[in-house]
Amino acid sequence: MPQAAYDVLGIGNAIVDVIGQVSDDLLAKTGLAKGSMTLIDAGQAESLYAEMAQTVEVSGGSCANTMATMASLGGRSAYIGRVHDDATGTIFGHDMRGVGVTFRSTPSREGLPTARCLIFVTSDAQRTMATYLGACVELSPSDIDEDLVTQAGITYLEGYLWDKPDAKAACLKAADLAHKAGNRVALTLSDSFCVERWRSEFLDLIDEHVDILVANEGEITALFPGASFDEAVKQVADRVAIAALTRGPAGCVVVDEDGATAVAQDRIENVVDTTGAGDAFAAGFLYGVSHDLGLPASARLGNLAAGKVITQYGARALGSLTELVAAAKA
Amino acid sequence: MPQAAYDVLGIGNAIVDVIGQVSDDLLAKTGLAKGSMTLIDAGQAESLYAEMAQTVEVSGGSCANTMATMASLGGRSAYIGRVHDDATGTIFGHDMRGVGVTFRSTPSREGLPTARCLIFVTSDAQRTMATYLGACVELSPSDIDEDLVTQAGITYLEGYLWDKPDAKAACLKAADLAHKAGNRVALTLSDSFCVERWRSEFLDLIDEHVDILVANEGEITALFPGASFDEAVKQVADRVAIAALTRGPAGCVVVDEDGATAVAQDRIENVVDTTGAGDAFAAGFLYGVSHDLGLPASARLGNLAAGKVITQYGARALGSLTELVAAAKA
Repeated sequence: MPQAAYDVLGIGNAIVDVIGQVSDDLLAKTGLAKGSMTLIDAGQAESLYAEMAQTVEVSGGSCANTMATMASLGGRSAYIGRVHDDATGTIFGHDMRGVGVTFRSTPSREGLPTARCLIFVTSDAQRTMATYLGACVELSPSDIDEDLVTQAGITYLEGYLWDKPDAKAACLKAADLAHKAGNRVALTLSDSFCVERWRSEFLDLIDEHVDILVANEGEITALFPGASFDEAVKQVADRVAIAALTRGPAGCVVVDEDGATAVAQDRIENVVDTTGAGDAFAAGFLYGVSHDLGLPASARLGNLAAGKVITQYGARALGSLTELVAAAKA
Repeated sequence: MPQAAYDVLGIGNAIVDVIGQVSDDLLAKTGLAKGSMTLIDAGQAESLYAEMAQTVEVSGGSCANTMATMASLGGRSAYIGRVHDDATGTIFGHDMRGVGVTFRSTPSREGLPTARCLIFVTSDAQRTMATYLGACVELSPSDIDEDLVTQAGITYLEGYLWDKPDAKAACLKAADLAHKAGNRVALTLSDSFCVERWRSEFLDLIDEHVDILVANEGEITALFPGASFDEAVKQVADRVAIAALTRGPAGCVVVDEDGATAVAQDRIENVVDTTGAGDAFAAGFLYGVSHDLGLPASARLGNLAAGKVITQYGARALGSLTELVAAAKA
């Protein structure tokens, strides 16, 4: 088999984040559950935006963040996602290509505007997200670029896509194509509420299509109701070849045929915004897996990338992260 | 005289910043002088943007930053500047109003798009700016809201406005109105290259209209060619009632009828981007002057605000800064 042209191809919701610092009182007033992601319509997006004080606009989208951070680490990543031909879509495309991600999706000239995610950051550095999906809902099987899937060692799917039937169909098409080409399929569970909405479908997906699973503690325990984290780890070990399960400041547990290994996170000072910690972890972890660093070093690289991104506003570090790869190998 | 409704009214170029981390090599390739502000046209803006990797979009504009930070400190600020009725203009207006600045300018539906400033941040935390002025060039005397000028204790003008004749005329109109209403006029020299372009006009402006001058070391020594910083301080003392002259990490020198006083800056750790340090200083200083804190405490507040903003990307701190006021008074 020839070497893959891309380490990882991501498929996800293409979103620009609008980040604001808010008080706990204001967050409570919005009715959003702290730490969660809620889908909102255009009207809610407008009224919630009006509640925010000063904001920062920065390209986001969970899987897109992971592909961008992969590129910043020196990995070869590609991305499929829908944007509209508007200022927000232009920013999204610029930032993906600017950092070195292959992104060939044509912006749509009809339909809904590019997606925006309003991110409310509280003084405890937690983030609460309200997403207007806009053009993302147009993602369908016809958007799956077969060449990209065939040329990518890993195709990485975003659980959030399950909220729209056409996007789900696109993911299943990509998973089939990837396996036919002898490549691997990875999945992030995205959000515990998303897991609750799609638990049985996610279990089927994992059993039938997923080689590499990425999830945080809330998500993986939502997948196995009533299970403790340790019990969930055991269940995961029976179902996928490789998994990385994150526990915030405690680090993560990686799982493969040899069993489960905990990899601690260093203590991070100056945490201002935990947005994108999981996305950055996934980037480091997938970089390691696709470069055969072994699971412990892959997990360390995930921890290093996550530790970097939480000391700033926004889910993607500006500038190169290649020095983290050497640090993770050491 | 009734108490002013606004502590400070700012008049300036309304700009959204596009911030990217770049290598010294890439900066050299652009031909931009490190630390400077260069005016560029639409074509240059497009090609320079294409050179940047991932960016962050955040409302900017020197004087607008100062008014936003004034509001974050708990001051009553207002702003006059031109934006277009586009996505960038919407972001600018949202961020000004969201943080509590009175901003009533109507976005233009014809003419040029809202201004953008491409900011190249290097690993030494220096920022180099390339500004496409767009809709800003439409600022003219008819934009001067006489009620606002009359109701503001201080009208604060941005030196950058001197690059366009109509904007200059707008400033002079505002200065006249302010003095007729018994209010004060403040000026920032903005940029040393801007001072070189308009030296003699700035000297006339200062002599005839300015009560409070804000400048950094490069700007004030550009105003008096051949003068050392200390000599420039003496010249300033003869020409304006109050001045604040900043020296980066060393802090500032404040000047009034009692003489010159140096106020040291604390050592700041984790400096990532010095964009907006001067704007934030001006906000703290003008807050202090308009609240009669005395010059040393006003300078301390300026130093605290500047120290805050340089530990993050972007020229405005997210969230409230009211705790800095108490710290400066202590």
